[in-house]
Amino acid sequence: MINLKYQSYVGGQWTTPGGKPFSSVNPRTREIVATYASCGKAEAERALSMAHRAYQRYRALDKDAIAKFLGAIADEIEALGDQLLDTADRETGLGIPRLTGERARTCGQLRAFAQLVSEGQWVQASIDTAQPDRKPLRRPDIRRMLRPIGPVVVFGASNFPFAFGAVGGDTASALAAGNPVVVKGHSFHPATSEMFCHAVAKAAESCGLPEGIFSLLLGDDHALGASLVTHPHTQAVGFTGSLRGGRILMDLAANRPSPIPVFTEMGSINPVFICEDALKTKAETIAAGLSASVCMGTGQFCTSPGIVVIRENPEFEKVLAGMFAEKPRGVMLHARIASGFAEAVSETMKHGDVKWLNRVEVTASDDKMTPPNILLKTSAAAFLADPKLSEEMFGPAILMVACRDAAQMREVANHLSGNLTATLHATEADSEAGELLEILEQKVGRVVFNGYPTGVEVVPSQQHGGPYPATSVASSTSVGADAINRFSRFVAYQDAPNGLLPEALKNENPYGIYRRVNGKLTRDPL
Amino acid sequence: MINLKYQSYVGGQWTTPGGKPFSSVNPRTREIVATYASCGKAEAERALSMAHRAYQRYRALDKDAIAKFLGAIADEIEALGDQLLDTADRETGLGIPRLTGERARTCGQLRAFAQLVSEGQWVQASIDTAQPDRKPLRRPDIRRMLRPIGPVVVFGASNFPFAFGAVGGDTASALAAGNPVVVKGHSFHPATSEMFCHAVAKAAESCGLPEGIFSLLLGDDHALGASLVTHPHTQAVGFTGSLRGGRILMDLAANRPSPIPVFTEMGSINPVFICEDALKTKAETIAAGLSASVCMGTGQFCTSPGIVVIRENPEFEKVLAGMFAEKPRGVMLHARIASGFAEAVSETMKHGDVKWLNRVEVTASDDKMTPPNILLKTSAAAFLADPKLSEEMFGPAILMVACRDAAQMREVANHLSGNLTATLHATEADSEAGELLEILEQKVGRVVFNGYPTGVEVVPSQQHGGPYPATSVASSTSVGADAINRFSRFVAYQDAPNGLLPEALKNENPYGIYRRVNGKLTRDPL
Repeated sequence: MINLKYQSYVGGQWTTPGGKPFSSVNPRTREIVATYASCGKAEAERALSMAHRAYQRYRALDKDAIAKFLGAIADEIEALGDQLLDTADRETGLGIPRLTGERARTCGQLRAFAQLVSEGQWVQASIDTAQPDRKPLRRPDIRRMLRPIGPVVVFGASNFPFAFGAVGGDTASALAAGNPVVVKGHSFHPATSEMFCHAVAKAAESCGLPEGIFSLLLGDDHALGASLVTHPHTQAVGFTGSLRGGRILMDLAANRPSPIPVFTEMGSINPVFICEDALKTKAETIAAGLSASVCMGTGQFCTSPGIVVIRENPEFEKVLAGMFAEKPRGVMLHARIASGFAEAVSETMKHGDVKWLNRVEVTASDDKMTPPNILLKTSAAAFLADPKLSEEMFGPAILMVACRDAAQMREVANHLSGNLTATLHATEADSEAGELLEILEQKVGRVVFNGYPTGVEVVPSQQHGGPYPATSVASSTSVGADAINRFSRFVAYQDAPNGLLPEALKNENPYGIYRRVNGKLTRDPL
Repeated sequence: MINLKYQSYVGGQWTTPGGKPFSSVNPRTREIVATYASCGKAEAERALSMAHRAYQRYRALDKDAIAKFLGAIADEIEALGDQLLDTADRETGLGIPRLTGERARTCGQLRAFAQLVSEGQWVQASIDTAQPDRKPLRRPDIRRMLRPIGPVVVFGASNFPFAFGAVGGDTASALAAGNPVVVKGHSFHPATSEMFCHAVAKAAESCGLPEGIFSLLLGDDHALGASLVTHPHTQAVGFTGSLRGGRILMDLAANRPSPIPVFTEMGSINPVFICEDALKTKAETIAAGLSASVCMGTGQFCTSPGIVVIRENPEFEKVLAGMFAEKPRGVMLHARIASGFAEAVSETMKHGDVKWLNRVEVTASDDKMTPPNILLKTSAAAFLADPKLSEEMFGPAILMVACRDAAQMREVANHLSGNLTATLHATEADSEAGELLEILEQKVGRVVFNGYPTGVEVVPSQQHGGPYPATSVASSTSVGADAINRFSRFVAYQDAPNGLLPEALKNENPYGIYRRVNGKLTRDPL
């Protein structure tokens, strides 16, 4: 049992900062769960100075010491037991089953990165040996590997308080690469973040790691985020959240005297395209799967489908509207998200060519916190003409875009901005699928066939990313082993004495890892 | 023999744009070599629209078709014969031997990328097969590989008219990844760029590639660069040049409605540290190597050493000054670079604590185009106090930073910004080398031991990059096979029908490449 301190953890010390207080609220009951004071510039300064200092020791650690730390964090998270689940449930309303699953995933991520680091392979060690007799000049010995970069600032997400929260995938991958982490915990669930912080602090202590290796700064103040991103010691930023918030951080980072990379995962409308024969032969199945995907987690997944593109089909509309009506209402994470959703839906509905297919009476007593599941419809012509109809409605809503024919469906596909995913429902008879795929694969990080985008499988081949505005760096992924690459960079060593080389590059290959030696993969020593 | 057209090549057509004329000048004689009209917004628009259209065909090409194209470009460049060397020599004054070597490197790069593409391995294909019986949910089949991104804009460098010019490493790697390229040719050598463009145009024609796959826009107008970087079809930018120019492009790209990655290689002072025993035992050798490295190519290499950090040592100063005096003067590339160098040196010399160790009388008849080789000296205290002393002097000059002791040398190392390289001279007796290395490897892309940073070996382990301001993306390299990764991004396919998958991901593994299948590297079909 943890006694919550209702404090931030700044460079190894629990701290009550001087900023304005803010509280988390139980979305089901509206009761205040926990109150914290906001951190500000002073805490950012201290956290990053300590992180920079800690980095000088952390970067020199043996790989197994880092792996042990990550494993210890996972153990300590599990040791928090039901208290973690209860605290998170009270702050987010996500429910114990979902949070239990997310905890397993979060600890799984930490252990997967521990294993990755322990195996040592991820550094992509490469060696080209010297050629002393090459003419006209001797060829030098050059060896290269991925190294850490320094303090990383992570912004926890509201919708995944564990898997993308204070000690989620960004923190795990940044620590795994050898970097200290300063987390700006999400203001919707500060007590949950504090619990994770206790787990990391215990793990760091038991592993004898320096103070400053991890800080948790809580606050409900945009100035705190700006202080963290613009601090000279910050070397990279990870963020999961809204397009607006992410773009602000991108701009702050780009305008620094010394710009740094920002890995944001932002808005995505995850279009679902249904081809002609699929719609004809599998309408019921698709309607069932699609409505479940849209309403899952009250529509608050980054991969929640936001538009469905089909040929005009009154029958399918009726079936889908029926299924939307049957789905129980869920509870939104927070009043701000609930208002944002209500506003986005009402903006969309202002359009003259948008209809609400499963309209329910909204009464004065109706609660924005438990909105109806909404199925809207518009024409392809209207969608193509008004960029507002392409904006994300973060919550349980989808916009059906009705097309004349395959050509207009392709036009809609071409019109799309960057997205995390696109989905194609097609049978073997749907020859139009190939042409759609050629367009969609240019727009997204992942194309899903005959399935639904929610549910991001954690496997090495996963790509959770996509062109802007889905993310800020389309070439990166925030899920899977390669997420570690975001927080590292290559360093080459030319003619370095063996004793001064990092272990992974030493002649004797002490880690026994595969290395590319003169172009060939081998585990042999030199 | 090519009949020069003195035109730009825009979307498959030789064009005389309406912009203001500019001329290249022979740096040795000051004679005008060639005159061109500047391209502007209209040409940028046309080139990028055509590139976008060409991309839809080019991205679908078989890998061997792309490899053939790259090889054909190399062949056509060689077919330009002495005319290319003569033209470039007249526009740059770099001399036939250097240009001959650079041509070999340029064609070598193209053929190396052709081989890389032909082997097919670079796409990092990864497959995680479905687990139909997994509980609670079936695991889907997910496959991932690198795909092209779309039109890439390349800014040719002034100092490497071949290897980083119109058809240098950036163009070669962008084309190899499957992207059309629009080049802004450097205004100091437009005729040289035009010759390369003839080679690409011929190769594209012989390979039956669409118009717009390559454009060369010539101009001496910053608005042209801005039009190219801000065009909505542009997906990435490659640039080699000054910090000022590079930062302008970075800012333009970051402030687009849809930001894009910009890979700039910019300023670097490539510090050289000489440890105590090395200075004692190898002073003559180091002085000879260092003076040669500083004066090579009239100091106009991106890896030219700009500061040397040592313990105060009057003897070494004398030896080094003598060697600087003996080196013949070279000719600068262009009057603008010559003035820039003169200004940078005179700015540095204004500092009260900077001495010119090999001072020569500068007479009124002296030509800025053939400046003396300059050895300056300052104290570590002055260097640490004045950030201006850390600025690059692009030309044959080096600033010696004299330190009290090892601690002060470390202080200087800690004070440095990002650089492409750092060099350490140390013998086995120099125990201080390890501590210096720990600092320097955090600052640079490549650490050189007991050598000189000029001469960038083209091997897979090479890292030509470094933290800002050396480059804009520290994790990338502009030399070596991995340069192709800059212009590609991962796309994942979930449960895609085999027939719709890209070749590299198909069950039968038609390319016979190594793929990571369920975590293991294999060339087997599924």
